[in-house]
Amino acid sequence: MEGTVKCSANYLPLTPISFLERSAVVYRDRVSVVHGDLKFTWSETRERCVRLASALHHLGISRHDVVTVLAPNIPAMYELHFGVPMAGAVLCALNIRHDSAMVSLLLKHSGAKFIFVDYQFLHVAKAALEILLKTSSKIPQLVVIFDHARSSSRVDDNMTLTKENLEYESFLASGRPDFEIIRPHNEWEPISLNYTSGTTSSPKGVVCSHRGAYLNSLAVVLLNEMPSMPVYLWTVPMFHCNGWCLTWGVAAQGGINVCLRNVTAKGIFECIARHRVTHMSGAPTVLNMIINAPSDDRKPLPGKVVVTTGGASPPPMVLFKMEELGFNVTHAYGLTETYGPATVCTWKPDWNSLPHDAQAKIKARQGLQHLGMEDIDIKDPETMQSVPPDAKTRGEVMFRGNTIMNGYLRDSKATEDAFKGGWFRSGDLGVKHPDGYIELKDRSKDIIISGGENISSIEVESVIYSHPAVLEAAVVGRPDDYWGETPCAFVQLKDGCNASAHEIIKYCRDHLPHYMAPRTVVFEDLPKTSTGKIQKLILRRKAKEMGSLTTTSKL
Amino acid sequence: MEGTVKCSANYLPLTPISFLERSAVVYRDRVSVVHGDLKFTWSETRERCVRLASALHHLGISRHDVVTVLAPNIPAMYELHFGVPMAGAVLCALNIRHDSAMVSLLLKHSGAKFIFVDYQFLHVAKAALEILLKTSSKIPQLVVIFDHARSSSRVDDNMTLTKENLEYESFLASGRPDFEIIRPHNEWEPISLNYTSGTTSSPKGVVCSHRGAYLNSLAVVLLNEMPSMPVYLWTVPMFHCNGWCLTWGVAAQGGINVCLRNVTAKGIFECIARHRVTHMSGAPTVLNMIINAPSDDRKPLPGKVVVTTGGASPPPMVLFKMEELGFNVTHAYGLTETYGPATVCTWKPDWNSLPHDAQAKIKARQGLQHLGMEDIDIKDPETMQSVPPDAKTRGEVMFRGNTIMNGYLRDSKATEDAFKGGWFRSGDLGVKHPDGYIELKDRSKDIIISGGENISSIEVESVIYSHPAVLEAAVVGRPDDYWGETPCAFVQLKDGCNASAHEIIKYCRDHLPHYMAPRTVVFEDLPKTSTGKIQKLILRRKAKEMGSLTTTSKL
Repeated sequence: MEGTVKCSANYLPLTPISFLERSAVVYRDRVSVVHGDLKFTWSETRERCVRLASALHHLGISRHDVVTVLAPNIPAMYELHFGVPMAGAVLCALNIRHDSAMVSLLLKHSGAKFIFVDYQFLHVAKAALEILLKTSSKIPQLVVIFDHARSSSRVDDNMTLTKENLEYESFLASGRPDFEIIRPHNEWEPISLNYTSGTTSSPKGVVCSHRGAYLNSLAVVLLNEMPSMPVYLWTVPMFHCNGWCLTWGVAAQGGINVCLRNVTAKGIFECIARHRVTHMSGAPTVLNMIINAPSDDRKPLPGKVVVTTGGASPPPMVLFKMEELGFNVTHAYGLTETYGPATVCTWKPDWNSLPHDAQAKIKARQGLQHLGMEDIDIKDPETMQSVPPDAKTRGEVMFRGNTIMNGYLRDSKATEDAFKGGWFRSGDLGVKHPDGYIELKDRSKDIIISGGENISSIEVESVIYSHPAVLEAAVVGRPDDYWGETPCAFVQLKDGCNASAHEIIKYCRDHLPHYMAPRTVVFEDLPKTSTGKIQKLILRRKAKEMGSLTTTSKL
Repeated sequence: MEGTVKCSANYLPLTPISFLERSAVVYRDRVSVVHGDLKFTWSETRERCVRLASALHHLGISRHDVVTVLAPNIPAMYELHFGVPMAGAVLCALNIRHDSAMVSLLLKHSGAKFIFVDYQFLHVAKAALEILLKTSSKIPQLVVIFDHARSSSRVDDNMTLTKENLEYESFLASGRPDFEIIRPHNEWEPISLNYTSGTTSSPKGVVCSHRGAYLNSLAVVLLNEMPSMPVYLWTVPMFHCNGWCLTWGVAAQGGINVCLRNVTAKGIFECIARHRVTHMSGAPTVLNMIINAPSDDRKPLPGKVVVTTGGASPPPMVLFKMEELGFNVTHAYGLTETYGPATVCTWKPDWNSLPHDAQAKIKARQGLQHLGMEDIDIKDPETMQSVPPDAKTRGEVMFRGNTIMNGYLRDSKATEDAFKGGWFRSGDLGVKHPDGYIELKDRSKDIIISGGENISSIEVESVIYSHPAVLEAAVVGRPDDYWGETPCAFVQLKDGCNASAHEIIKYCRDHLPHYMAPRTVVFEDLPKTSTGKIQKLILRRKAKEMGSLTTTSKL
């Protein structure tokens, strides 16, 4: 329109960097990060991040260079989420459960210029660099992070600093506090690179933009009903989708980041009581850990704690028990490609009058897109037709919006496949309820096809979870001569509890159609990714290795 | 980065239209708008807005055409905030206090194609169109809105519908519910045009973009600590900066819009009790109305009500009394050019232990930029140097960010002046406190310069407000032979209260440096804009007309 103009007064690229800049003024003297007895304020955190950016810049890091980090939820990990983008670079936080071979592969694929490593993972990083040296002459600069909240951190075996390795605090000290931070020219520029956790396929490098990160951070703050100055407990790994975007989101609201190196029930209860935690997040496994905590490890909650869970549907029993303890559970769902949370099962007040198990069934739904995501649909992946909202017809969950990744790094083919038809194809299968809410019916590979019938492993697991002796369960398909596949349950019992395979099977037959009940039950500790997802890939392999069941008729 | 792509799956222009689209699914059966006994749900509101867009499109409205409206806070006014942008057009909501001459001028300046008019203002619109006809052959199409919540609405004198005039409900009915809405190609495109209220100069047309409206809506939701499904009482006129962006913000959170044709204390208390209102906003005059309500008009609050106030600093007494009644007051500040609220006086928990009047002093500060605004500063308008944070040095309040207007319609010169130096110059004067919070020390013209000393009229008013007999006060400069200017107070006393000019002057001298005390006190009802701002321009004129005071020495 005539008379208007786009200029530096009215147009700036969206970036989470702005959250820190603002909080360093508004909340300047309030606590930003706490880790054991170590505490920083927002103005200190900003200064540390600026120094970090300056030091990176000084050592030649330039726009869009990749900086990796291998660390648990410690203050340095938080600072890297701002310091790296403030140098114009791209943060790539690696999963701390990776072995050296995988770390080496990801360093190579990302073309990383730096690797920041927590002292506990130094041996992994060093071995990865050695592998890398065999095929490349350029290896990333290593910076070791000691944990100043732990006196033991310096005496670890791996602690010997060679002269070519830098140490985090000295590195920071070498940076200038008045460094002019490097902002994106364009909000579409990358801020982070997150490798998919690879439970079902080889890792892909998800490129996230400043714009997407900004918008998803605000959406996640709203989804968590997070007011200003929340106290957030870091039980979700920051390397998992940048802590579901709450690394940036907590800065937006000037909250307190309570760091936690090891996620244990005792640690969670202690932090909640000590810091008066208001918000936390975690996979259902984390909730499970909480509700099954021995009484010695528990402490009463100082107030309501809002917990956002995702990564898998929370089983009804887990929900009940969490609410009984005083937690307020919200269920969200998303993928690395959606910057973490993309949907939320928005709770309607009318549902409070429903019976408890009906409530739990609704809460286990993935719901609808959050405020930052434009659109969600469940479509036939071939025809792109929407499925009817009949709670029965399955289709693929698809998204459109500004909180969808820019694409997969150096994999145009995978990017193209993911965006075919103008929607992001999640690979997850689900149904649409008459009220529009979606419900996952399994990751594509988690469906067990038995005698031509699709069996949702989630449904079977949900029943097994409700058995009083069961701590955790995962169900996969086992080859079967007659039926093709039959459900095989891996079950971990609670300490001091007993149940036989026969009992579990009977329990399932009492609560499910017979064909859905497992034919095999294995008792063991379940393998998990560091983000708490049960590694079904491993279980699927195990089930395969058991060999075919020979059955000739229906159970 | 290699492998990435920008496409319809991962990039969509930001627009508040998305809020309605999402809420029509997530909150489909929940109440969206309530007005008397009339109620709509979010899916109904969406359908009505789509029909409205379709009907406009059918009558030839195309991208960036201007559609005006002259109406109080009724459902149609709310619907126009979505229906007009969904036709690709630009909404221009006019101040209902304007006379026909001003309406005619704004219709001409904006090049409006439509004018939607509430039945109560039909005579104003008709007279405006008649004026317009004298100089132009093209006049906007008129659509009359009857108030279905009022049986009297159809029997008004002005209700005779001529055949060339349309009626709102029939107009909607003529639109298609399956109309494909017209989204912006680019988020920079205009969504609304808001004429500045013109307390100090001739109205200018502020052009707002879809991007800015989206971002400011989220920022205002966060600033109000508004969770999902709030109940919002419309005491701020929607024609004022699109209801401080909460027309769109309440849709984002799936809240209930409680409409209110006339803002009275009785109406406010009734609505709060009946609808269990959680949030509302208003100029300090609205708060004043609440605290001075006769006891018959009051009802107990059903719960905490969050009130955001702005437009002028809330006087301490008003704050105390509001809090006593159970309201939780947040102070925000902004201008039409900043889409309404731009700053918020974020309340720190440490301040709760301060004495009441220290708290009120802090709360009267404008604070710092909200989450959607990039930057705020107080600068010397000549040198562009920041003033020191000494709570004393004055400068001009300046902003930068995505929630600053695109510019002034057809006034490149004014746009250029406003953005000179790469910042938006607010024209307001203020100081910066040591903690970074800003405090207005008067709109530029509100400073009284007396014997070379600057007197802040706000400071003088603040003292007068604390006098027990005073309902409202405004202080302007009156010409003075000796001092140049001296403060002249216009005071409205509470019903049944008495105070002499002498008493008021003495009270000020007891609480202020003597030179700041008014030399003239006039008792009268204060003239106000419809947004509750006291019209100082009129008072300044009156003070001038009184003629010069003849004083020869200090009081």
